[in-house]
Amino acid sequence: MRYDLYYWPTIQGRGEFVRLALEEAGAEYVDVAREPEARGGGEAALIAMLDHVSGGHVPFAPPILKAGRQVIAQTANILFFLGPRLGLVPRAEATRLWAHQLQLTIADFVSEVHDVHHPISGSLYYEDQKREAKRRAEFFRRERMPKFLRYFERVLEGNRRSERYVLGARLSYVDLSLLQLVEGLRYAFPRNMKRHERHCPRLISVHQQVMTRPHIQAYLESERRVPFSTEGIFRHYSELDSASKTRKRK
Amino acid sequence: MRYDLYYWPTIQGRGEFVRLALEEAGAEYVDVAREPEARGGGEAALIAMLDHVSGGHVPFAPPILKAGRQVIAQTANILFFLGPRLGLVPRAEATRLWAHQLQLTIADFVSEVHDVHHPISGSLYYEDQKREAKRRAEFFRRERMPKFLRYFERVLEGNRRSERYVLGARLSYVDLSLLQLVEGLRYAFPRNMKRHERHCPRLISVHQQVMTRPHIQAYLESERRVPFSTEGIFRHYSELDSASKTRKRK
Repeated sequence: MRYDLYYWPTIQGRGEFVRLALEEAGAEYVDVAREPEARGGGEAALIAMLDHVSGGHVPFAPPILKAGRQVIAQTANILFFLGPRLGLVPRAEATRLWAHQLQLTIADFVSEVHDVHHPISGSLYYEDQKREAKRRAEFFRRERMPKFLRYFERVLEGNRRSERYVLGARLSYVDLSLLQLVEGLRYAFPRNMKRHERHCPRLISVHQQVMTRPHIQAYLESERRVPFSTEGIFRHYSELDSASKTRKRK
Repeated sequence: MRYDLYYWPTIQGRGEFVRLALEEAGAEYVDVAREPEARGGGEAALIAMLDHVSGGHVPFAPPILKAGRQVIAQTANILFFLGPRLGLVPRAEATRLWAHQLQLTIADFVSEVHDVHHPISGSLYYEDQKREAKRRAEFFRRERMPKFLRYFERVLEGNRRSERYVLGARLSYVDLSLLQLVEGLRYAFPRNMKRHERHCPRLISVHQQVMTRPHIQAYLESERRVPFSTEGIFRHYSELDSASKTRKRK
């Protein structure tokens, strides 16, 4: 099966979670909007996909996956679909739902990461909501970032079958997404991430393991990997990464 | 199968999407935290569930559904699990994924509704982020609210098999969630919702149809339905519902 992925061509964004799964599995896929316009690619192809979808399954936003005649949107939903097809999740329903639950929690975390630099509106520039962003960032660094990181650490602790993966004794797409989460947080919040990492050694160990997998390593070093930037979801603005106040929690 | 739902007892919140599905199906369920503490209920039971979960499937946040030995969190994930068991979604995989994609888009909308009154932090009172909330609300009313509403209208338009439901010719849990969405928006943004409703007649018609279903009607009139309030996700603050500026979009 050949897969067509439709996502913004110049950022990692939410599409990256899908790209990592396709790359690890060595799947045959086209990152459509990154193809030249002359070959039916570019943003135009993505926009067309948002506007005209066969069968009435209209997506609200990218990423969008086309698999034969099926058109699927919502990142976690795409991974739920791809997981068993790419051998990146066990087949038992209960395990698939657990993997999906974790992926949805990663999605919630990623949304909060986005809203740190865009607390007022996605249609305003960061510079036009910088004051609010600085205020939101303070709570993000002090409360949300450690809460999510410790949650995933606790989940890893609960996996008695392996210290290398989040589900049982094999790699799953959730591990790939955790890799992206750690990479993104290290890029966006290097100062705070350094401080938090010592409280989530298992998560960091999963990150290290996944980084050395041949397909992932090759992908990350290739031109297919879009670099991090202040256009994406994970953004580095040093004013949002200052040392957290040590005020005690209520 | 008896289901145990764990959710905050005094608000509708995200748990309401699950309650509506269980109620419509006439399922046997206990809304655990709404039971008296003496009978193992109350918030204490919910907190205990968040802290101690068997089998390592730790939830990040409520709602949480217990079905036999399975413990499932994330609202859309719970509905994905319950859908076929309660006869509230067709069994074909492609249709289940489409229903789920819509549910995840509803979840995104609901998160944005929440962040209108809490743009800085969930751990601050509304009054302590009111200025930012007013600014965010302006963009929400002018851009996000119509964008989501028109999206669901377009989805309903795309269903050639019925004008009454979102999937094919039968009620699904997505219709129940759309009911809650319309109810919530009417409560929180009555002034703006009135203006937007004329652009989404199909959505309003689904709402009307679902409201008159015997189980739903009985539930909404019962004491089991927690009322809307300024403690929940949909909150009415008149200053956030003022008439939108008519500034043209770029």
